[in-house]
Amino acid sequence: MSSKKVKAAIAGASGYTGSELARLLLAHPDVEIDIITSETHEGRPFSALHPQFRGLLDMPLKPAEAISERDVNVIFLALPHGVSMEFAEKWAQHPARIVDFSGDFRLSSAAHYAKWYKREHTWPGGLGHAVYGLPEIHADAIAKARLVANPGCYPTASILALAPLLAGERILTDTLIVDAKSGLTGAGISPSATSHYSNVNENFRAYGVTNHRHTIEIEEQCGLFSDTRVSVQFTPHLLPVDRGILATAYATPRSDISQAELTDLYTDFYAGKPFVRIREDLPSLKDVRASNFCDIRPVYDARTNRILIFSAIDNLVKGAAGQAVQNMNLMLGLAEITGLLQVPMQP
Amino acid sequence: MSSKKVKAAIAGASGYTGSELARLLLAHPDVEIDIITSETHEGRPFSALHPQFRGLLDMPLKPAEAISERDVNVIFLALPHGVSMEFAEKWAQHPARIVDFSGDFRLSSAAHYAKWYKREHTWPGGLGHAVYGLPEIHADAIAKARLVANPGCYPTASILALAPLLAGERILTDTLIVDAKSGLTGAGISPSATSHYSNVNENFRAYGVTNHRHTIEIEEQCGLFSDTRVSVQFTPHLLPVDRGILATAYATPRSDISQAELTDLYTDFYAGKPFVRIREDLPSLKDVRASNFCDIRPVYDARTNRILIFSAIDNLVKGAAGQAVQNMNLMLGLAEITGLLQVPMQP
Amino acid sequence: MSSKKVKAAIAGASGYTGSELARLLLAHPDVEIDIITSETHEGRPFSALHPQFRGLLDMPLKPAEAISERDVNVIFLALPHGVSMEFAEKWAQHPARIVDFSGDFRLSSAAHYAKWYKREHTWPGGLGHAVYGLPEIHADAIAKARLVANPGCYPTASILALAPLLAGERILTDTLIVDAKSGLTGAGISPSATSHYSNVNENFRAYGVTNHRHTIEIEEQCGLFSDTRVSVQFTPHLLPVDRGILATAYATPRSDISQAELTDLYTDFYAGKPFVRIREDLPSLKDVRASNFCDIRPVYDARTNRILIFSAIDNLVKGAAGQAVQNMNLMLGLAEITGLLQVPMQP
Amino acid sequence: MSSKKVKAAIAGASGYTGSELARLLLAHPDVEIDIITSETHEGRPFSALHPQFRGLLDMPLKPAEAISERDVNVIFLALPHGVSMEFAEKWAQHPARIVDFSGDFRLSSAAHYAKWYKREHTWPGGLGHAVYGLPEIHADAIAKARLVANPGCYPTASILALAPLLAGERILTDTLIVDAKSGLTGAGISPSATSHYSNVNENFRAYGVTNHRHTIEIEEQCGLFSDTRVSVQFTPHLLPVDRGILATAYATPRSDISQAELTDLYTDFYAGKPFVRIREDLPSLKDVRASNFCDIRPVYDARTNRILIFSAIDNLVKGAAGQAVQNMNLMLGLAEITGLLQVPMQP
Repeated sequence: MSSKKVKAAIAGASGYTGSELARLLLAHPDVEIDIITSETHEGRPFSALHPQFRGLLDMPLKPAEAISERDVNVIFLALPHGVSMEFAEKWAQHPARIVDFSGDFRLSSAAHYAKWYKREHTWPGGLGHAVYGLPEIHADAIAKARLVANPGCYPTASILALAPLLAGERILTDTLIVDAKSGLTGAGISPSATSHYSNVNENFRAYGVTNHRHTIEIEEQCGLFSDTRVSVQFTPHLLPVDRGILATAYATPRSDISQAELTDLYTDFYAGKPFVRIREDLPSLKDVRASNFCDIRPVYDARTNRILIFSAIDNLVKGAAGQAVQNMNLMLGLAEITGLLQVPMQP
Repeated sequence: MSSKKVKAAIAGASGYTGSELARLLLAHPDVEIDIITSETHEGRPFSALHPQFRGLLDMPLKPAEAISERDVNVIFLALPHGVSMEFAEKWAQHPARIVDFSGDFRLSSAAHYAKWYKREHTWPGGLGHAVYGLPEIHADAIAKARLVANPGCYPTASILALAPLLAGERILTDTLIVDAKSGLTGAGISPSATSHYSNVNENFRAYGVTNHRHTIEIEEQCGLFSDTRVSVQFTPHLLPVDRGILATAYATPRSDISQAELTDLYTDFYAGKPFVRIREDLPSLKDVRASNFCDIRPVYDARTNRILIFSAIDNLVKGAAGQAVQNMNLMLGLAEITGLLQVPMQP
Repeated sequence: MSSKKVKAAIAGASGYTGSELARLLLAHPDVEIDIITSETHEGRPFSALHPQFRGLLDMPLKPAEAISERDVNVIFLALPHGVSMEFAEKWAQHPARIVDFSGDFRLSSAAHYAKWYKREHTWPGGLGHAVYGLPEIHADAIAKARLVANPGCYPTASILALAPLLAGERILTDTLIVDAKSGLTGAGISPSATSHYSNVNENFRAYGVTNHRHTIEIEEQCGLFSDTRVSVQFTPHLLPVDRGILATAYATPRSDISQAELTDLYTDFYAGKPFVRIREDLPSLKDVRASNFCDIRPVYDARTNRILIFSAIDNLVKGAAGQAVQNMNLMLGLAEITGLLQVPMQP
Repeated sequence: MSSKKVKAAIAGASGYTGSELARLLLAHPDVEIDIITSETHEGRPFSALHPQFRGLLDMPLKPAEAISERDVNVIFLALPHGVSMEFAEKWAQHPARIVDFSGDFRLSSAAHYAKWYKREHTWPGGLGHAVYGLPEIHADAIAKARLVANPGCYPTASILALAPLLAGERILTDTLIVDAKSGLTGAGISPSATSHYSNVNENFRAYGVTNHRHTIEIEEQCGLFSDTRVSVQFTPHLLPVDRGILATAYATPRSDISQAELTDLYTDFYAGKPFVRIREDLPSLKDVRASNFCDIRPVYDARTNRILIFSAIDNLVKGAAGQAVQNMNLMLGLAEITGLLQVPMQP
């Protein structure tokens, strides 16, 4: 490959976000994967963990430590909460830009982190210079950032659904409800009762009601648009599908609004944003599956005087690995869409 | 069979509610199926339409007209909207009790019917003496009724979720939101783009937003508990499962409430109601699948001062055929639970 | 309940076969569940493990040891291979009849057991007096047995598919192939990579190729019908469904045969057997789901001179708990069908 | 776009193969889609039929007739059997190469076509110069062909599974059985009882037993490797998944063979074929989903002296649109892999 290509390191090979990132980077014209790490599976080929990569990505896995000595331009941390912050601090002086998939750098303060993640933050200083990596909102800051906190999957769908209303000061900020539904991959690759096939298949239920960690992430980011405190009722549910999040959001308008105004508000807000598609019909998961798109449909119900917003993403792409690549593109001066315009996979 | 058994007629054999009703009646110790009708499939055995009944229910299908001459005790109308009202009027003088599965007799007025069903009611007089067949609320009236309007599937899950709060005057009646999710059988047995496997499988979306017919049914029934007008934001979604509805309802309390008070409110309201189970954890679809149970979990979120209610039913049983049998039991003086205590099917 | 009811003990509460057995016994008019055991969950209510039983079966779980002192008529061992044989031996003198769900007593010899189960049999003497509990073949012996080895799920579907051809000496016994497909519950309730939702959903693969334990069980039972050695190529596959097995069997006829002769052969062989339904079309999993039926369709392909047999069961019912109840009925002198004529659940 | 790009016409926009082809061509670096046709939807944007293409492929649909006047290099016929042959004949003098997705040009003779497709072939002359488009077998002929008959999905998986054994004369040619399982998209996009969600979901069954059209296609192509007549028992089944075919093939060896010889036979036969991956473990559908790979695992069972071959493809990619692009690459002198090395989508 050309020496001009971006060299990427992936720390954390065994999970779904790591494999999805590898899938996207292999399709990226300007990137080559330099190193992938796993402590547990050191020495084994990446494709031994993920057979779909057989013949496409067979490089042996290294310990994370090995990244320190690699001349890479970007490091993706596809690691669990708590582990990420150790490596982010360790590599703070590494010339590579860092995109962290975990929740370790998404919140504004160590106090919020301790409260919602039930553990102390080990590098509070990192919180200060990390940039929240939602490119539709923070593109400029992302471009300059050395450490980007890749947003959570639910927050991505939720914030993109609510931002135009909040930025336009069109809703009462204590009426926000996000009733969200996610595919099982959001729960990760580890076997558990939660992920047992017969507990998910033909089934549906809520979980994390009133206390899911993504609540504070959504509230903090939504709060950036508003002078008044933003309160969000966030209710996640588990769908019997592999991929996808549909967020159904509800809010009460501050003053009169029409469907036409509402549609214009969204269209204008996301003008020039290549991955947000404002729909005139209701989006479904398969309209965005395996792609970096977020499809949004805002609806005004005159009968109840309420605004509903439907927002669909693929949790592993726009909700994780795709957004990470989008952030990388911005950080490294590449065109935002590079390597990310795959057609959603339907059927 | 004994001549003491209740003789039942099923008008409408080809759909899911007809076959589910037949399944339940075959398991009912005090009922025998006397006649099943289908205009389209007249003369064919019932089991030719539904192979699972091979050897169990092979009786030939008759035209609906044939019911008029049968000495049956109960007639179930498993017919489409619009067709049901013709037969209900026709058989008004038949000595049999009638349970209608359609929406034709659920609303309070012909005006509401015309507005939400987009057709004129052909027997407005029937609306007056039909009883809404939700036994947990209207058991006494059902017992005396000659014509029972079996509730819609979504309204069953929604009204049972909200009734204790409304009856107890604990919530602001203009803050009600029901975000509901249903399995595909709610859309019926007819092939269409909606029911095509690859449009449902691995997919999820909302539909009928702001204008689904069940909205008015929920609002009317909820309104019976309240002096003030009850407004409901009802948003149905289509789940990639065969059976089941989970309704997630939101409301703002009128005054202070605690989780303990909330749990007591529900426990007390449904004391002695054999098919409502107040849960201490969150219900899932498979907890009630293939059964007549409605599992409910109310949650108070002190952080947002909002009440959430999770309500799960099987749309074909408690949301249709099971509830119809429960109504029949009440109408004919049988014990309410007779033939209806099947264990939910998990896995 | 009446003292005349059969008292049943279930050893092993936590798995799918235990909960399915409880579901069926609750629907059985002549049985009451006296005790259910679990070492791991001792003291917890059965419904804490299986929420669908809330309000229906809340009895606390006991240690298996407690069965020894109970005056029960039948003991069901829903235990793992290796554990069952210990309890079967322990309770050999208990007056109760025993139905064992495991593979410990299905084979003819300790040598076969050691070879295919990779462990020594601890009670070889038990193999001698255990009866293989396939009622369509061994009803008389089952009626007299004290210890019945409930057949494996794949063997049930496979043997019932092949028995008429072997008994009638219509096929070459070295040409048998059984290409079988099973739902995930066959793999059990324990979380593992195998049962992880995203490894099963939208997926399909073979497993246990050439060496699955059920191979020898099928060969031994099929061998009972034949003077020549019966060899079976058995290939299991994992379906993305909860329940059901479809076995597609292939064999070469020994001499000329027609479709009519083939159909007659099966119809005659299973005359009077209430749970085998010879179909004139191809059976599907949902035609038998949640029921004790085995639907079979034999096909003669004149073009290739080969016989194909399609056989469908629910692996948890006819392939486990339902067959166990059928065996219990025979052992205790009840009508074979008692409590087992549920309509298959479709949809 | 550059004028040097290949210009492609897609005749037939509404089905799954048309949309899958569009998805792949949009990702192809050397192709631009010049025209897409649909008689039914003329004038509507392509993305109105397939919302996942919103913003990616919104070009208006034209009547098929319009292709005649376009200066395109390749025409893909994604049309039904019977319709394709009319257009193939019509455009026989068009300078563009033609790849036909239908079965109209796959067979060797009009007689076979009439027998298996139950209709007369309207352009028997076309059969003579059409080339069967399985690149792993017929790459040279494809490169020179003007009309390529893109293989059926089942035949692709089946022929690739059997070819090494037949070419090496290692098996008895009257012992071949292919027990195949396909996802629902193989049945097409039209709503029907077959494709109704609740008939597919949680279900499984065989269909087309003894007389599926792909039987003759497999037999003819397999016959090219053998002097003796090749007979194939082909049994398709319908899986509750969107995409994928797993073929399980059985054959009896002609003489002694070992697992090592078998593996070598396959490895050697497919050396240099970029889309066939010989596996050392059993392939699953998700190992190849959304990709052009065919993963194959041959197994020798010494106990039964039989060879088993497991072969997995995505029916819409290697079984249809991907293989069509691979054929196009060969026909137009592009590298065979161009635009086709996507990583399979798991999960």
